[in-house]
Amino acid sequence: MNLLIKNAEIVTMNKEGEIMIGDLHIVDDIIMNIGPNLEVSQPDKIIDAKGKTVIPGFVQTHIHLCQTIFRGQGDDLELMDWLKKRIWPLEAAHDEESIYYSAMLGIGELIQSGTTTIVDMETVHHTEYAFKAIAESGIRALSGKVMMDKGDEVPVPLQEKTENSIRESVDLLEKWHNYDNGRIKYAFSPRFVVSCTEKLLREVQFLSEHYHVMVHTHASENLGEIDIVQKETGMRNIVYLDHLGLANPRLILAHCIWLDDEEKKIIRERGVHVSHCPGSNLKLASGIAETPYMISEQVSLSLGADGAPCNNNLDMFNEMRLAALIQKPAHGPTAMDAHTVFKMATIGGAKAVGMENEIGSIEVGKKADLAILNLNHFHTYPSYGVDPISRIVYSATRADVETTIINGEIVMENGLLKTINKSIVLHEANNCIKRLLQRAKMK
Amino acid sequence: MNLLIKNAEIVTMNKEGEIMIGDLHIVDDIIMNIGPNLEVSQPDKIIDAKGKTVIPGFVQTHIHLCQTIFRGQGDDLELMDWLKKRIWPLEAAHDEESIYYSAMLGIGELIQSGTTTIVDMETVHHTEYAFKAIAESGIRALSGKVMMDKGDEVPVPLQEKTENSIRESVDLLEKWHNYDNGRIKYAFSPRFVVSCTEKLLREVQFLSEHYHVMVHTHASENLGEIDIVQKETGMRNIVYLDHLGLANPRLILAHCIWLDDEEKKIIRERGVHVSHCPGSNLKLASGIAETPYMISEQVSLSLGADGAPCNNNLDMFNEMRLAALIQKPAHGPTAMDAHTVFKMATIGGAKAVGMENEIGSIEVGKKADLAILNLNHFHTYPSYGVDPISRIVYSATRADVETTIINGEIVMENGLLKTINKSIVLHEANNCIKRLLQRAKMK
Repeated sequence: MNLLIKNAEIVTMNKEGEIMIGDLHIVDDIIMNIGPNLEVSQPDKIIDAKGKTVIPGFVQTHIHLCQTIFRGQGDDLELMDWLKKRIWPLEAAHDEESIYYSAMLGIGELIQSGTTTIVDMETVHHTEYAFKAIAESGIRALSGKVMMDKGDEVPVPLQEKTENSIRESVDLLEKWHNYDNGRIKYAFSPRFVVSCTEKLLREVQFLSEHYHVMVHTHASENLGEIDIVQKETGMRNIVYLDHLGLANPRLILAHCIWLDDEEKKIIRERGVHVSHCPGSNLKLASGIAETPYMISEQVSLSLGADGAPCNNNLDMFNEMRLAALIQKPAHGPTAMDAHTVFKMATIGGAKAVGMENEIGSIEVGKKADLAILNLNHFHTYPSYGVDPISRIVYSATRADVETTIINGEIVMENGLLKTINKSIVLHEANNCIKRLLQRAKMK
Repeated sequence: MNLLIKNAEIVTMNKEGEIMIGDLHIVDDIIMNIGPNLEVSQPDKIIDAKGKTVIPGFVQTHIHLCQTIFRGQGDDLELMDWLKKRIWPLEAAHDEESIYYSAMLGIGELIQSGTTTIVDMETVHHTEYAFKAIAESGIRALSGKVMMDKGDEVPVPLQEKTENSIRESVDLLEKWHNYDNGRIKYAFSPRFVVSCTEKLLREVQFLSEHYHVMVHTHASENLGEIDIVQKETGMRNIVYLDHLGLANPRLILAHCIWLDDEEKKIIRERGVHVSHCPGSNLKLASGIAETPYMISEQVSLSLGADGAPCNNNLDMFNEMRLAALIQKPAHGPTAMDAHTVFKMATIGGAKAVGMENEIGSIEVGKKADLAILNLNHFHTYPSYGVDPISRIVYSATRADVETTIINGEIVMENGLLKTINKSIVLHEANNCIKRLLQRAKMK
């Protein structure tokens, strides 16, 4: 594909933070040129983006696609209750088809709201069908089956032996890692320390080094969780992960709300990536992470919506607004300004997945992962004299994304998805949750 | 107009909280009948709302239409700096045309996101042109010119004498109160205690009783503001307002973040209405109001977006989500659940403006103020087994409003505004803010 996007306001997020009016020339999956009045002979397609705004596609570093069909099934519960009473029983009831449609429902929402890369954690079984949906949809993803070889009150179908957990993870890795020329990557996904034996975590550390793949887990989300870890290991979460050799730049930790000084030091010094999930953290009453401190200490910080049943959207516009707003009462009105938050949502996410040379900004030679916004609406006007990044973070919403391009492929154009059949996915999402609720004896 | 809406999911918000599938029959401005398969002979118009959700139009009890064109001009500042450095100089630069287009820009956004009634505070001058926009647009509104006859660092054009402030308010009241068969009402709008002499506030108290109109002001938004009030009056905000006889069911107080026990008692016992503005309170770093306490004490509580430069949207979906989410870390995951928040956004707002017998719920005999939502999207699915009010509060967004009806008039249908010319308003909004920034020597 040889694609020319003309006359756009381009928010590059390059090192100089340039914002320019100009054209973008994309050949196959790569941005070939950026500038005013590009001359391109015979492009396959021209998009006239006059008056529109092009931004790097969002990178969400903590998502559970397998939970998308649980949206609305876990409102107003705290983490451990939410897991044990709602999420685990529903995950245990999943089948191949429900995993597939849950992923498609989530990816549809993500693409429509301008997210082009996700770090996704699936459930114990049927992860093959999430990869199938990821492959078909065109989204860029790091994903993996969840690993959980211990824990109280875990439903039988989610209980797994250490060896099986590892073998199945490696099988999926060998099939899917670097699929479609690197668009899909595997990520080892131990659920959290509470759910994993030391043996499992040590094996994950070894394998992530051996295969050069990321590790994606939760840590320090909830005070109850921290107590369990302390009781069982004699250490706090991050100290324990460091003790096992996992605290390194291949590790993405979702949440990190309740860190002590030693844990903050480990995260900072080892280059661990923190995925901040403000919507989920508020809804599950987990707390508010100290992101202004992390920013001042140059911790690698990015954003994620987590799963649909604890948010209830997978929408980067929501997460950006929240990430900015919730810190201001405690840290003052200049804390977490629009630029800081927009960086987290784009190039910050790219750094977290080790792809800052490939995605996260609009620069020549990078992958063409981007969203075209139409900000010509009542709720985003005036435009005169307003910082474009303030408009995006504080005023824009998901519906202002018109077109989404991933890896050079137009996956949504003028609001219409090209790779996902919306009416089938919505219909099947309802069928699947109905079946799962019956199977889990929850309805 | 004789209008039949067919086959909708109707979220009535009546006392029983009924949600039903059925039809709605509207004659002129009134809901004549609700039920399954209504037989109506020759309606002027039929809307087939199969698969759609009809809700009462939102009531926002604290808005500044005159500030809509300042959107993006006051990011990352605290209240007193925000007022003195940005908002007052821009308000002082307003002219008749800029007031009109600022109002139209705000009303366009409000109607598109399902808000059908607002309580609006204008600036010192040209309020006639806000009423003109309100009248033309079809929105239901209580509005008034701001009154401010004292204060430091107030730009000359905003300084007014007590007598003039009162005379101009009464002139506007006599022209606009109960305009269009009661769709428009006047509300006295003293800015806040800091900006008003005792003489002015006593006169407002007398006049609001004399004319039976509401009083709309700010109180206890910011610790600096409270210090000034304490120094000047020797009392805290609400105690002072009570001392002047203003604490009664005709008073709407925006914010009420920092209340002591005596102030809480006055608000509760006198039936004062609190307009909670979570987005604005976070963005200006003002704090988080104790809404779970107010709910438990049955304080009259409603929601407002405040002005565009401190939010930056006028979107009830944003405010509902925030009102629910921001309380949970401190008060637990069940605090401010979806039903509580949706009540505040609808019937709670109706109570605040003394119109709970006319608007705020979908019931026979009430005014036809409502919004038709299309929740058949990736981000609002599944629908099976999900509480409709959870879907609206936690998953839906402004763009899911398809049609808005106010006072029986279809003011937006399938996303297209009927009473406002969008392209003219956007164009003129830019022209106006450009002129105001130059006049205020801010650009």
